[in-house]
Amino acid sequence: MNIADMTPAELQAQKVSLEQQHQAFVAKGLALNMARGKPSRAQLDLSMMLLSDIVATDECFAEDGTDARNYGVLDGLPEAKRLMACFLDDEPENVIVLGNSSLNAMYDALARCWMFGTGGHAPWSTLDQVKWICPSPGYDRHFAITEAFGIEMVPVAMTQDGPDMDDVERLVADDASVKGIWCVPQYGNPTGVTYSDETVERLAAMACAAPDFRIFWDNAYGVHHLYADPDRQRKVVDIRPACERAGNPNRPFKFASTSKVTFPGSGLAAFASSAENLAEAKRAMGVQTIGHDKINQLRHVAFLEDAEGIAAHMQRHADIIRPKFELVARKLAEALADVPDCSWSTPLGGYFISFDAPENTAKRIVALAKEAGVTMTGAGATYPYGRDPRDSNIRIAPTLPPLEELDEAMDVFVTCVKLAAVEKALAEA
Amino acid sequence: MNIADMTPAELQAQKVSLEQQHQAFVAKGLALNMARGKPSRAQLDLSMMLLSDIVATDECFAEDGTDARNYGVLDGLPEAKRLMACFLDDEPENVIVLGNSSLNAMYDALARCWMFGTGGHAPWSTLDQVKWICPSPGYDRHFAITEAFGIEMVPVAMTQDGPDMDDVERLVADDASVKGIWCVPQYGNPTGVTYSDETVERLAAMACAAPDFRIFWDNAYGVHHLYADPDRQRKVVDIRPACERAGNPNRPFKFASTSKVTFPGSGLAAFASSAENLAEAKRAMGVQTIGHDKINQLRHVAFLEDAEGIAAHMQRHADIIRPKFELVARKLAEALADVPDCSWSTPLGGYFISFDAPENTAKRIVALAKEAGVTMTGAGATYPYGRDPRDSNIRIAPTLPPLEELDEAMDVFVTCVKLAAVEKALAEA
Repeated sequence: MNIADMTPAELQAQKVSLEQQHQAFVAKGLALNMARGKPSRAQLDLSMMLLSDIVATDECFAEDGTDARNYGVLDGLPEAKRLMACFLDDEPENVIVLGNSSLNAMYDALARCWMFGTGGHAPWSTLDQVKWICPSPGYDRHFAITEAFGIEMVPVAMTQDGPDMDDVERLVADDASVKGIWCVPQYGNPTGVTYSDETVERLAAMACAAPDFRIFWDNAYGVHHLYADPDRQRKVVDIRPACERAGNPNRPFKFASTSKVTFPGSGLAAFASSAENLAEAKRAMGVQTIGHDKINQLRHVAFLEDAEGIAAHMQRHADIIRPKFELVARKLAEALADVPDCSWSTPLGGYFISFDAPENTAKRIVALAKEAGVTMTGAGATYPYGRDPRDSNIRIAPTLPPLEELDEAMDVFVTCVKLAAVEKALAEA
Repeated sequence: MNIADMTPAELQAQKVSLEQQHQAFVAKGLALNMARGKPSRAQLDLSMMLLSDIVATDECFAEDGTDARNYGVLDGLPEAKRLMACFLDDEPENVIVLGNSSLNAMYDALARCWMFGTGGHAPWSTLDQVKWICPSPGYDRHFAITEAFGIEMVPVAMTQDGPDMDDVERLVADDASVKGIWCVPQYGNPTGVTYSDETVERLAAMACAAPDFRIFWDNAYGVHHLYADPDRQRKVVDIRPACERAGNPNRPFKFASTSKVTFPGSGLAAFASSAENLAEAKRAMGVQTIGHDKINQLRHVAFLEDAEGIAAHMQRHADIIRPKFELVARKLAEALADVPDCSWSTPLGGYFISFDAPENTAKRIVALAKEAGVTMTGAGATYPYGRDPRDSNIRIAPTLPPLEELDEAMDVFVTCVKLAAVEKALAEA
C-alpha cells in the first residue's frame, strides 16, 4: 500500500516495522560508502599497465625529441596535447596539459581571474561583489571553490536540458558582478543530465553585462558512457566553437582529466580555451611552474593512445559500473513504488544517480543511513552553501563498493527512505 | 700582462686579437648552453629505476593500507612525508607532500597569503603596498613570482654569511608593508653561499613590524653537496625550530623538492611549517585539490628509501657534476689571472657559479657569448626586475653540458670576458 494512502495507525505500524529493519542493519555494524565518485578497485586494476615500464629507457623522449625527464615544456608534450584534446573535444593546439587534477586547474583559473583579472579587466578581488551562477543540484567541490573566494553563489535550477536558461540569461543580462557559471555539461554531477544543443548555444550567445563573464566548463564525464550502443550515449555540443560563432570567443574555460579514466590523483588534467585565454594562462603559469609531469604524459599516451583507445578502455570501465547503476535503479524501483514524491535519475553515463526524496527528508535519510553504517554524500551538498531549499536531493555514488556491498547498502538506503517518508507522513497526519 | 697595466696601444692590439678569437668561435656555429640549472643526461640516467615497475601490482598500497591509485590523501602518504622530511630537514608531521614543483608550491603559498591572508591577518591583495626583501644576487624565478603579484622588491646584498642582516633587520623593523623574504639558505642560487648560524638566528628572532612577515625558505640544495668529505659539506641551521625558539613559530614557510635529485618535473615537492601554518595551508589546499600523485610518492620512496639512500644517490650526482664545477674554476683562474676586477664563487654544493665581471660589462659579455653560440643566464637576471646596479653578475650553470662541451663553452666565455674588459679599459683610457 502506498504510504500516501495509509491511515495513521497503518503508518505507525509501518514505522515500527521499518525501525526494526533499520535497527537490524545498525546491529550488523556495516561500513559501506556511497558518498564519493571514486572508481572501484576493479576499475583501477584496468590501468595497471601504467605501473609497468610502459615508458622505458629508450622511450623517455617525446616525439619532438624532448627529454621528458628534464625541466621544461610548460603546456604539455605534443602527443599529450593530442591525447587530452580527445577528452576536451577540442584541437590539440587549443590544449594546455596540466598536473594531476582538473579541480586544481579550475581553482587556479579562478584564482588567476581573482588576482590578475582576465581579458584586461579588473582583478575580481578588487570588485565590491562577485556573483556566480550555480546550476543545482551540482558538484559540491565546485561550490567549495567559489565559496572559498567569498563569491556569492546564485543557484539556478537544473532541467533535463541543463540549467534553466531563462534564469541564467536573466541573471547575466543586467548584473556585471555575475562573473561565471559552473557547468558539468555531459552526464552532469549529480543529475546525469547532458546539456541540450539549445542550452549550449544559449550559453554561448547570451548577452552578459560582464565582459569578463566566464563559463567554467568541466567536461568531467565526456567519455564516461555506460552503454556501448551509440543510441544510448549522449554527447554535448562543444562550447568553444559555439562561443566563437557567437562572437564570444573568450567566454569558455574548458577542463577535463583522466581522473576517472586511469588512476585518480595520478592522471593528467587539461585546459582548453581561446588563443587569447591560452596565452593569458600561460603567462601566469610560466611564473608558477616550469612544467608538469611529462613522464606521466608519456605514460598516458602509451597506455590510452588515442580516441579509439580511450573508448575501448572506457567500455571496460562501463562493463564494471553499468551493473551497479542498474542495480541501484532496480532497487529503487522495487522498494520505493509505494513511497510518494520520490524520483531519481537513470543516467546513461557519468558517476552519479541523483535521488530526490520527499521534501524535508533528505537530511533525515542520510542521518539514518549513517547510523546503519552507510555513508552518503551529505544532504544539501549538491547545493551552494550546503543549503538544499527543499531538503530533498541526495547524491548516490554507486561505483566504489563491490556489487554485493552496493546491494546491501541500497537495502539500507531504501529502508531509510521509507522510514523517513513514514515519519513525515505521520507528522503531517 | 694585466689588462690594468696595458697602454692604449697594447689594449688595442689585445682587442684585435680577442676579436679574432671571438670571430673564430662565431664561425664554428656552436650551440652551447650554460643558462639554466638543469641536470645533464648522465644525471637523469641515475634515476631510471623510476621508469621501471618499481611500484608493482602488489605494492600500490601505502603502509597504512591506502590504495595509492585512488583519490584522497591531501597532505601525502606517511612514508612520503618521512622521505620529504629528509629534504626539508624537519619532522614528518610538519611536512605536506605536494605536486611536482616547489616553485609551484611557493607561488601557491604566496597566492594564499595574497587572496586570503595568513595568520588571521588581512589578505595582502587588500593592502596599499606589499614589499619583499630579495637577497641579491638571487634566483630569477623567485623574483618573477613577487613581480607578478606587483610586490615591490627590495634588494639586499648577499654576504658570505647570507643576506646582509643589518639591512634586513632595518627593513623589517619599521615597515609593516614588508611581508616576506626569499631565501635559498644552503648553496644559494647563484652565490653558493650557505647561511651562517648567526644569520639564521637573526632571521628567526628579528623584530618585524608586520605580524604576518613570512620567510620563504627554499631549501633547494639541502642535499646537493659536491664533496663526500664532511668537512667540505655545508649544512644550514633549520629555520623552523629557530623561529619557534624565538617566539615566531609561524614565520617560516619551508620548501624543497626532488627536482634536481630524480627527474625535474616528475618528482615530488614538499612544504614544512608550524602546525598553525600547516592547518591553514591544508584548509585552502583542500578546496584546490583532492590530493597529489601518490603513485609517484611511492615510486620515490621505493627508489630513494631514506636519508642514507638520498646521500648515496646524491654522491652519484656529485661524481658527475663535480668535475664540471672544477673545470669552470680552473678555466676561470687560468684565463682571467690578468683581468682586473673579476671574481667568482667556488661553491661546495648546489648548481651554480656566481661570476662577477668588471662593472658595466656583464650585459656585453653575455651578448658576446650569445653571438658565439653560448647561451648564458641573462645578465641582470639575478637581481629583482633584471636590474643589476653594477651590471656585473653572471650566473654560470655548468651541469647541463657534457664536460667537453663545457670546456669549449668556457673557452668562449673567458674570451668574451677578456674582450669586454679590454673594451672597457680602452673606453676609460
